[in-house]
Amino acid sequence: MFYLLDIIGTMAFALSGALTAMNKRLDPFGVFIIAFVTAVGGGTLRDTLIGRTPVGWMRDLNYVYFIIAGYFLAIIFRKKLDRLRTSLFLFDTIGLGVFTLIGLEKGLDTNLHPIICIALGTMTACFGGVTRDILCNEIPVIFRREIYATICIVGGILFFILKHWNLDNDILYVITSCVMISLRLLAVKFKWYLPALKQN
Amino acid sequence: MFYLLDIIGTMAFALSGALTAMNKRLDPFGVFIIAFVTAVGGGTLRDTLIGRTPVGWMRDLNYVYFIIAGYFLAIIFRKKLDRLRTSLFLFDTIGLGVFTLIGLEKGLDTNLHPIICIALGTMTACFGGVTRDILCNEIPVIFRREIYATICIVGGILFFILKHWNLDNDILYVITSCVMISLRLLAVKFKWYLPALKQN
Amino acid sequence: MFYLLDIIGTMAFALSGALTAMNKRLDPFGVFIIAFVTAVGGGTLRDTLIGRTPVGWMRDLNYVYFIIAGYFLAIIFRKKLDRLRTSLFLFDTIGLGVFTLIGLEKGLDTNLHPIICIALGTMTACFGGVTRDILCNEIPVIFRREIYATICIVGGILFFILKHWNLDNDILYVITSCVMISLRLLAVKFKWYLPALKQN
Repeated sequence: MFYLLDIIGTMAFALSGALTAMNKRLDPFGVFIIAFVTAVGGGTLRDTLIGRTPVGWMRDLNYVYFIIAGYFLAIIFRKKLDRLRTSLFLFDTIGLGVFTLIGLEKGLDTNLHPIICIALGTMTACFGGVTRDILCNEIPVIFRREIYATICIVGGILFFILKHWNLDNDILYVITSCVMISLRLLAVKFKWYLPALKQN
Repeated sequence: MFYLLDIIGTMAFALSGALTAMNKRLDPFGVFIIAFVTAVGGGTLRDTLIGRTPVGWMRDLNYVYFIIAGYFLAIIFRKKLDRLRTSLFLFDTIGLGVFTLIGLEKGLDTNLHPIICIALGTMTACFGGVTRDILCNEIPVIFRREIYATICIVGGILFFILKHWNLDNDILYVITSCVMISLRLLAVKFKWYLPALKQN
Repeated sequence: MFYLLDIIGTMAFALSGALTAMNKRLDPFGVFIIAFVTAVGGGTLRDTLIGRTPVGWMRDLNYVYFIIAGYFLAIIFRKKLDRLRTSLFLFDTIGLGVFTLIGLEKGLDTNLHPIICIALGTMTACFGGVTRDILCNEIPVIFRREIYATICIVGGILFFILKHWNLDNDILYVITSCVMISLRLLAVKFKWYLPALKQN
C-alpha cells in the first residue's frame, strides 16, 4: 500500500517535471532528464547525505520503469494535460505526503535526531522540484510562492508528536499523510501563502 | 591506452569549460573552477551516487595536473582557439566516448543492472557540461540542441548487446567507442537534432 | 576556541544567505533554506565527496540551532543590517578562515594529498556561497568579482609550508587564519580584484 503510493507519487513528480520542461521547449532527452530528476532528486540527495549508497533508484528498477511510463504519458497526452490538471495535482499532493514520510523513516533508521529527520523528510519531498527549477533556470517555485515545504515541516512535527504517544506505525502514517494532504488542498483552494520578506 | 584517452578527454572537457567561462567574462579563479567542474563533474556525481568515496580525482592526482594544464592552455591560446575548434571538438568527442565506457564499467563493478549502468555512463559523459551551464546561469545546452546524451544511451545499449555475445572486452570497448564517436561526428556534420516537444 | 569560531562563521554565513534571499523577495521558508544551505553547503559537499556520511550538521545539532538563531536575527534586524554591515563582514571573514582550516584538516584526516586538501579547504569556505547564488539564479559572485577563493588557496599553501617546518598545530592555525583574514580585509579595503579573462 505504502509502496504503491510511493510509486504513484514518483510518477506524478515525473509528469510534473516533464510538463515544466516541455514548457521550456526542451528536446525529448532534456524533458526525460528533468522528469527523472524531479522524481528521484529528493530521495537521491537524502540517500547521498546519509550515506545509503548506491542510492535508492539504483537498487529498485520499478522506480525507473514508472518514471519512463510517466514520461511517455506526459508526451502522449501533452495536449490534454490541461484538462487532467486536477488529477495531476492530486497525485502530486499524494507524492508530497508519501515522500515526507519516507524521508522521516529513513532518518529514524539511521538513528538521527528528530529535527534532522524532519529536514530529511522535507528534502525528500521538495528537492526534486528545486532541481527541476534550477535546471530550467528559474528561482525554485517553492521558495517564492507555494506553501509546500511548510506543510512537510508541519507533517514532520505532527509525526513525532504522535510517535511520542506510542501510536501504531500504520495509524501514524495514515494520520500524518492525511493531515498533510488536506493542508495542501486547503492551502491551494484558499490561496494561503507566506508573505515575502522585504528589507524595507 | 584507455587511461591515456581518459586523460585526453578530461583535458578536452577542461578546455571546453574554460572557454565557456571566458565567454561569460569570469575572473581567472571562476574560469578555473568551471574548467575543473566540467572535467570531473560527471565522474564525481557518479562516484558519489554509487558510494565510491573519496571520489576518483581525489585518489589520482594526474587528473588534477592535466586539468591545470588544460586551463593554462586555454588561457594562453585563448585568442587562437577559434582556429583550433576542430581539434577541440575531436578531443571532446573522444571524451564523450571514453567517459561513457568508464561509467558503464563502474556500474558493472558495483553489480548494478544494465539500465542503471547506462544511466551512469550517460551521467559520466554529460553531467560535467550540465554543471558548467548551470554555474554559468544557462539552461544546459544538451537539453536544448545537441544530440549528445542520446549518443551515450545508444552506446550503452550497444555495449550490452555486444557483451551478451561474449565479445572480448578490448574489442567491445573499441567498437562501442568508435560507433559513438562516428555518430557524434555524423550528427554534427549533418545537423541531426531532436525536435523540441511543444505543448501546443 | 576553534569550535566557537566555527559556530560564529556558520552563523555569519547563515546571515549572509538570509540577506541575499530577502533581497530576492523570497518567502520565509525560501529565506531559511538559503540561509541553511549557505551555512552548511561547503561542509556538506566536502563530507559527501570524501564519504564522511551522515554529513557533519546531521551529527551535531549545534550547527542547526545557530543557523536558526542567525535566521531569526536576520529577520528581526533586517531593517538595521545595513548599519551592521561591518560586523557582518568581519564575521564572514572569520568564517572564511575557519572553514578553510576545517576543510584542510578533514582532508588530512582522510590521508589525501596536500593539493586535494587545499581543494577541500577552498570548497568548504566557498561552496555555500556558490549554492546560495545558484539558488537565487545568479552567476556565483566569487566567480566574478571578489578575491575570495584565491585567499583560501593562498591560505592552504601557507598551511602546508608551515606544516613542513613542524610548527605546533595551534600556532599553525592561528598564523594561517590571521594571514587569510588580513588578506581579505586588505583586498576589500584596497579593492583588489582579479581581471576578467577576455577572449578578444
